[in-house]
Amino acid sequence: MPISRNSVNPKLIHLFSDVVGLTDEELDCMLEQFNPVHLRKKEFYLQSGEVCRQVTYVNKGCLRTYFPGEDGKEHTLYFAVEDWWIGDIESFHSGNPTKFFIQALEDCELLIMPKSGYDKMSRELPKYQEWYQMKVRNAYMASIKRYSDFKSGSAEDRYRNLMKFQPHILQRVASKYIADYLEIEPESLSRL
Amino acid sequence: MPISRNSVNPKLIHLFSDVVGLTDEELDCMLEQFNPVHLRKKEFYLQSGEVCRQVTYVNKGCLRTYFPGEDGKEHTLYFAVEDWWIGDIESFHSGNPTKFFIQALEDCELLIMPKSGYDKMSRELPKYQEWYQMKVRNAYMASIKRYSDFKSGSAEDRYRNLMKFQPHILQRVASKYIADYLEIEPESLSRL
Repeated sequence: MPISRNSVNPKLIHLFSDVVGLTDEELDCMLEQFNPVHLRKKEFYLQSGEVCRQVTYVNKGCLRTYFPGEDGKEHTLYFAVEDWWIGDIESFHSGNPTKFFIQALEDCELLIMPKSGYDKMSRELPKYQEWYQMKVRNAYMASIKRYSDFKSGSAEDRYRNLMKFQPHILQRVASKYIADYLEIEPESLSRL
Repeated sequence: MPISRNSVNPKLIHLFSDVVGLTDEELDCMLEQFNPVHLRKKEFYLQSGEVCRQVTYVNKGCLRTYFPGEDGKEHTLYFAVEDWWIGDIESFHSGNPTKFFIQALEDCELLIMPKSGYDKMSRELPKYQEWYQMKVRNAYMASIKRYSDFKSGSAEDRYRNLMKFQPHILQRVASKYIADYLEIEPESLSRL
């Protein structure tokens, strides 16, 4: 059964209606491509070796994307909360297995659009495709920024940035993951 | 004057003809959008604060992209040689000033396509637009890989990767830049 407008995060409606500029009919067509999926805390949305076959919106909850390093540790790439998109763009487009793990840190409600829905939207709605390309570019820029913050800033700078841009993360995510994300020792995090 | 086929790197012709699948006519249309530009060693292709208004192919030479860190140092993002594309995707699409510097490390010959040419190609040749989107995704994945190599691998691993994937860089680029790129001290680089 397709999802209804009042069961999705109002930010999703605002984005596609007011920012992307879809008509009411186009918006309904998009919502029809989504399926709601629930994940319990600690369940995986994606695991290394699997192929990412969908575009996914976080309607509720919080997840962590990480990869296993050559040093045997888990390295946190980002946290996703309400109104974020998750997945592995490279795996989605190439069909190659992902190297990432995406795990629910809370019970989550996801809206999942399978590749067939993405293909339909991209083919029929140029505005959707433009938005999607912009998202990919933004993800690219965010990853460069992440890397440059990591190379050139201090742990305290990174902590301040997290406070500024994702303050809710500090309340919702275990401090061991935050310490890993910020690349600091858990003891240093508690001092900050 | 439009550039001729025999004045461009054969890899560019191979890419668009055999991989992207442009017809002879489409390929000529693309070459017409490019202008050849020469840079002398140490000249800048792009400087922080400027807007990137073009798509650029390295026909000959070697360049370095770096950003000034909060720590006051220059941080090398990548080296580009023949058959690479350079620029700042975010600045190109948003019109915002770039934060990067791109400087010639050798005398360079660049093929520059202004935004008007890119717009024309994207509008008229879906195959070009598909290729471009794939390039953006690959750049995104490369930046994630760069970040993950940096977080989880040793300096020796990064050196071995550079030897494997860009061995010519070691011959062409000053060791201080390579040491910065690998995040090691110049003395450690000479030991490797």
